[in-house]
Amino acid sequence: MDYTPPLDDLRFLLTQAIDTSELSTLFAEQGFDNDLALTLLEEAGKFCAEVIAPLNLPGDATGCRLEDGKVITVPGFAQAYATYAEGGWCGLSAEPEYGGQGLPRTLQFLVDEMLSGANLSFGLFPGLTRGAVEAIVAHASDELKNTYLPKMISGEWTGAMALTESNAGTDLGLLRSKAVPNGDGSYAITGTKIFISSGDHDFGGNVIHLVLARLPDAPEGVKGISLFLAPKFLVNADGSLGARNSFSVGSLEHKMGIHAQPTCVMNYDNATGWLVGEPGRGLNAMFTMMNAERLFVGLQGLGIAHAAYGKAVAYAKDRLQGRAPGDSRAPAPIIGHPDVRRMLLTIRAFTEAGRALAVWTAIRMDVAHHHTDAAERAKADALVSLLTPVIKAAFTDFGFESTVMAQQVFGGHGYVHEWGMEQFVRDARIAQIYEGTNGVQAHDLVGRKLGLSNGKLAHEFFDLMAAELAEARAVGGIDDITAPVEAALARLRDVTTRVQARNVDIAETGAAACDYLRMFALVSFGWMWARMAATATKGGDTKLHEAKLAVARVFTGRLLPQTAALEAAIDNGAAPLLQLAADLF
Amino acid sequence: MDYTPPLDDLRFLLTQAIDTSELSTLFAEQGFDNDLALTLLEEAGKFCAEVIAPLNLPGDATGCRLEDGKVITVPGFAQAYATYAEGGWCGLSAEPEYGGQGLPRTLQFLVDEMLSGANLSFGLFPGLTRGAVEAIVAHASDELKNTYLPKMISGEWTGAMALTESNAGTDLGLLRSKAVPNGDGSYAITGTKIFISSGDHDFGGNVIHLVLARLPDAPEGVKGISLFLAPKFLVNADGSLGARNSFSVGSLEHKMGIHAQPTCVMNYDNATGWLVGEPGRGLNAMFTMMNAERLFVGLQGLGIAHAAYGKAVAYAKDRLQGRAPGDSRAPAPIIGHPDVRRMLLTIRAFTEAGRALAVWTAIRMDVAHHHTDAAERAKADALVSLLTPVIKAAFTDFGFESTVMAQQVFGGHGYVHEWGMEQFVRDARIAQIYEGTNGVQAHDLVGRKLGLSNGKLAHEFFDLMAAELAEARAVGGIDDITAPVEAALARLRDVTTRVQARNVDIAETGAAACDYLRMFALVSFGWMWARMAATATKGGDTKLHEAKLAVARVFTGRLLPQTAALEAAIDNGAAPLLQLAADLF
Repeated sequence: MDYTPPLDDLRFLLTQAIDTSELSTLFAEQGFDNDLALTLLEEAGKFCAEVIAPLNLPGDATGCRLEDGKVITVPGFAQAYATYAEGGWCGLSAEPEYGGQGLPRTLQFLVDEMLSGANLSFGLFPGLTRGAVEAIVAHASDELKNTYLPKMISGEWTGAMALTESNAGTDLGLLRSKAVPNGDGSYAITGTKIFISSGDHDFGGNVIHLVLARLPDAPEGVKGISLFLAPKFLVNADGSLGARNSFSVGSLEHKMGIHAQPTCVMNYDNATGWLVGEPGRGLNAMFTMMNAERLFVGLQGLGIAHAAYGKAVAYAKDRLQGRAPGDSRAPAPIIGHPDVRRMLLTIRAFTEAGRALAVWTAIRMDVAHHHTDAAERAKADALVSLLTPVIKAAFTDFGFESTVMAQQVFGGHGYVHEWGMEQFVRDARIAQIYEGTNGVQAHDLVGRKLGLSNGKLAHEFFDLMAAELAEARAVGGIDDITAPVEAALARLRDVTTRVQARNVDIAETGAAACDYLRMFALVSFGWMWARMAATATKGGDTKLHEAKLAVARVFTGRLLPQTAALEAAIDNGAAPLLQLAADLF
Repeated sequence: MDYTPPLDDLRFLLTQAIDTSELSTLFAEQGFDNDLALTLLEEAGKFCAEVIAPLNLPGDATGCRLEDGKVITVPGFAQAYATYAEGGWCGLSAEPEYGGQGLPRTLQFLVDEMLSGANLSFGLFPGLTRGAVEAIVAHASDELKNTYLPKMISGEWTGAMALTESNAGTDLGLLRSKAVPNGDGSYAITGTKIFISSGDHDFGGNVIHLVLARLPDAPEGVKGISLFLAPKFLVNADGSLGARNSFSVGSLEHKMGIHAQPTCVMNYDNATGWLVGEPGRGLNAMFTMMNAERLFVGLQGLGIAHAAYGKAVAYAKDRLQGRAPGDSRAPAPIIGHPDVRRMLLTIRAFTEAGRALAVWTAIRMDVAHHHTDAAERAKADALVSLLTPVIKAAFTDFGFESTVMAQQVFGGHGYVHEWGMEQFVRDARIAQIYEGTNGVQAHDLVGRKLGLSNGKLAHEFFDLMAAELAEARAVGGIDDITAPVEAALARLRDVTTRVQARNVDIAETGAAACDYLRMFALVSFGWMWARMAATATKGGDTKLHEAKLAVARVFTGRLLPQTAALEAAIDNGAAPLLQLAADLF
């Protein structure tokens, strides 16, 4: 088995550990309930395990090619994508108005985890299309919406996001691509973009590019950036495909991983495009969908970690090497070795808490979009804003570290291609980098999110956690789990207050950022472990509940103490980092 | 510049921070002193920077091939190896009796760091040859020595170590290869070995395999293993090359990294070989050189981290993106960003302390081999034994983590091949796995080394560190560096005592192992930073001294506090790891 979907855990989360009743209310019209959710997740899991997971290792070996300017994707991808689209999966959470099923994003994110774990290169095709769809829904004219959305939501056409240029990555304000009005409402876009995922392919249909560029006489910096829609094929009035637009794939990036994903250098040469949203508000248009995109990337880290865990467990049960403690002279499965268990349980402690936190946060996101009460929407949206950088960065950091541990379980076999473990490491690495590096996420958390609601938002979130921890404690019998989490939360509160006070100095923000984000994530994971442990204690004595309690204790006993070290690093401040003159590096 | 050798740091260590007078005494006959060392290191650095570093990136892209059973190495390697051998580098620390220069291993290790940083795939060729030479020197008959050593030491012939089989990795006791006496003093060896670095190549000359196999009726397990020498070409009485031996390359491993290194699956089919050492003592023969090999691997991790640091610094000074704290509106080099500095200084805090500890330990190794007083030899050897697993595992763990941080400095550019950063990550990863995984190293430290001298060895080492820390403190002005290290050492002492007490239970050994090793390494690094800070304080006010003090403060302020988290994890013990039944994973 190449990939085992986390269906038992999803059932535990949706039906026991997390309250999903708000989703049933908000999506009553779509008939949403946990039964529907679990049925769909089972179906999606089957697609992931049976269709795309088997393409993962061969896709990595083959990679995409560029021949005569055309992208050749790896064998099987086009057919798998067609199957996925035919199943209606592309529009799972999309607007019913344009053919989507209008189901919760929560469900979409859980499907995303599985897609990413089974085959990240594949999962990026529908994922980026969804991002483009969201930007169009939120900002484009009705004409553009009616022309493009139905076929993007059906999966007939795909989407791509063209932001980065070689000199403008984190700092998009530096980008140079130009858009000149053609006089007919369209624009001529010229420039070169790099790192464009799904920039082109051979699936058929159309590829809809959203391109950031500058209008003539636009001001410098981010305020001069506008967003344009440029399709690979111009679309005729009857909706059929017309002339080839004047942009092309300059080359495919030679990447560390996700070899089956055509990451393109794109050359736009007076390409025809249409403005999406207001002139000069291009970054704003991109950022409206950023929360969703960043949660998606966080789930990529989680998904690959889960996939790597599954293979590592199978190997550890099978591989006979050395003697287990207390065992006889015969070689024993290495899953008996405490150090192997340490690695496996560490992965699990991160992935299961992460999945729980993802579900909780995704529900907030659905509430933020669909609740009838504006105050409820705003409250939920604020929490999503706060947690988004944490999920993007921490899940992908822990995800990468998890793939490295899972690879280590295989010894030398982990270093060779056949077993697939080294691919997980290479693929997982990108998620720490794209959609804003994890350093950028940490800056976002400390420099922006900690300032929201006059600095009160984070503390409101801490209050929420504290109340739930008290409830978990009241269940009884899990003080060894709840007590260290409550202590860690108290530390996090204090650290937060200190970090907020120092935030007047931007250097202090940067110095604290990454360690603070990791500390924040560990405490949030602790909250979720306390919640899951309380659920498991109340829920009887099934094997899954037994496992939850065991993993919770590994988390609080071995991993949560890292918060103390992170606190010390944060409190060390910026001065030691700034002491060394640049020429002494 | 692809690679900048750490010559300033080496000068600082050899002439100021570490006392090398013992080497000058022990190697007086060879005319060894710091001037000679630095001249040779400069030469070696030049070779690394000018000859092999430029082959690193193209070698990764090309990789080795197997054509008609013949290994084709990447363009430039054969010539580079010839240049290296002609320079006399292969025999730098080898026995003068067989043509070596008899210089300190300390010097060899420092050359190894540079070779590995510039081009790990290349560095493994001379490195493995040296390992084979050492095993032959220590255990083979005079006839074998006279036949093989001179040409291996001159670099005309290379060596390979054939240990692992697909079912026997960490647990070599499971290996199945057979060796049957031919009746003429030679043996017929049959079996398949995997992961054989430098198993074959197209450099010309001969490839001398040291193969572990079982004699007929040998007992099961490690006591039935013997070591054999099997050359690719049999050697005629006059020393010329004769018939091709009956072994062949089955395939090349498809690896995550070190693509320019031909890692072979080898098939021995009644291959002719000769016993090295006593029957049934094969593992013993291999382990006599293990300390040296494992130090070599540790230096690989260090070398790649240093190389990655060099490129990341150059990029960070050049890349304009965002505004530095307190800077104007213009895009500024990212080296001004505290979070970028955090990553760069973390790498430096590990690599410079590691290099210092490597020099210190390597001198102990030279003393252990060459001192006239047996008691001094034994004392030095014990310290080397203790520190070897620490250096192998911690340097390669920190080395890998360093390459990941250096890659992160590049953002998206770090993920594509051209910049070379993702190759560092892939290449560095192997060092955590081979020559005994880092988990095995940790077991060796906790399960075996902590027990040496009735458990006193580690505490003697702590006494030595404590005395030096007191001396450093007495220099004055660096209490903020020495005090936390002294506190961390006190914790390490206590933890060690507790771990030793729990070592009666092998499960506790395994549960503590990896976290304990990391804690031990951090404290040892702290010792070296205190020593270097004291040296810098005494040494005047050069820029290098200023940098040493700054990096020391980053180490003690931000990184050393991790020891507290590790202590908590260690004290959590084995029970939580063992709680979950294997079928619940």
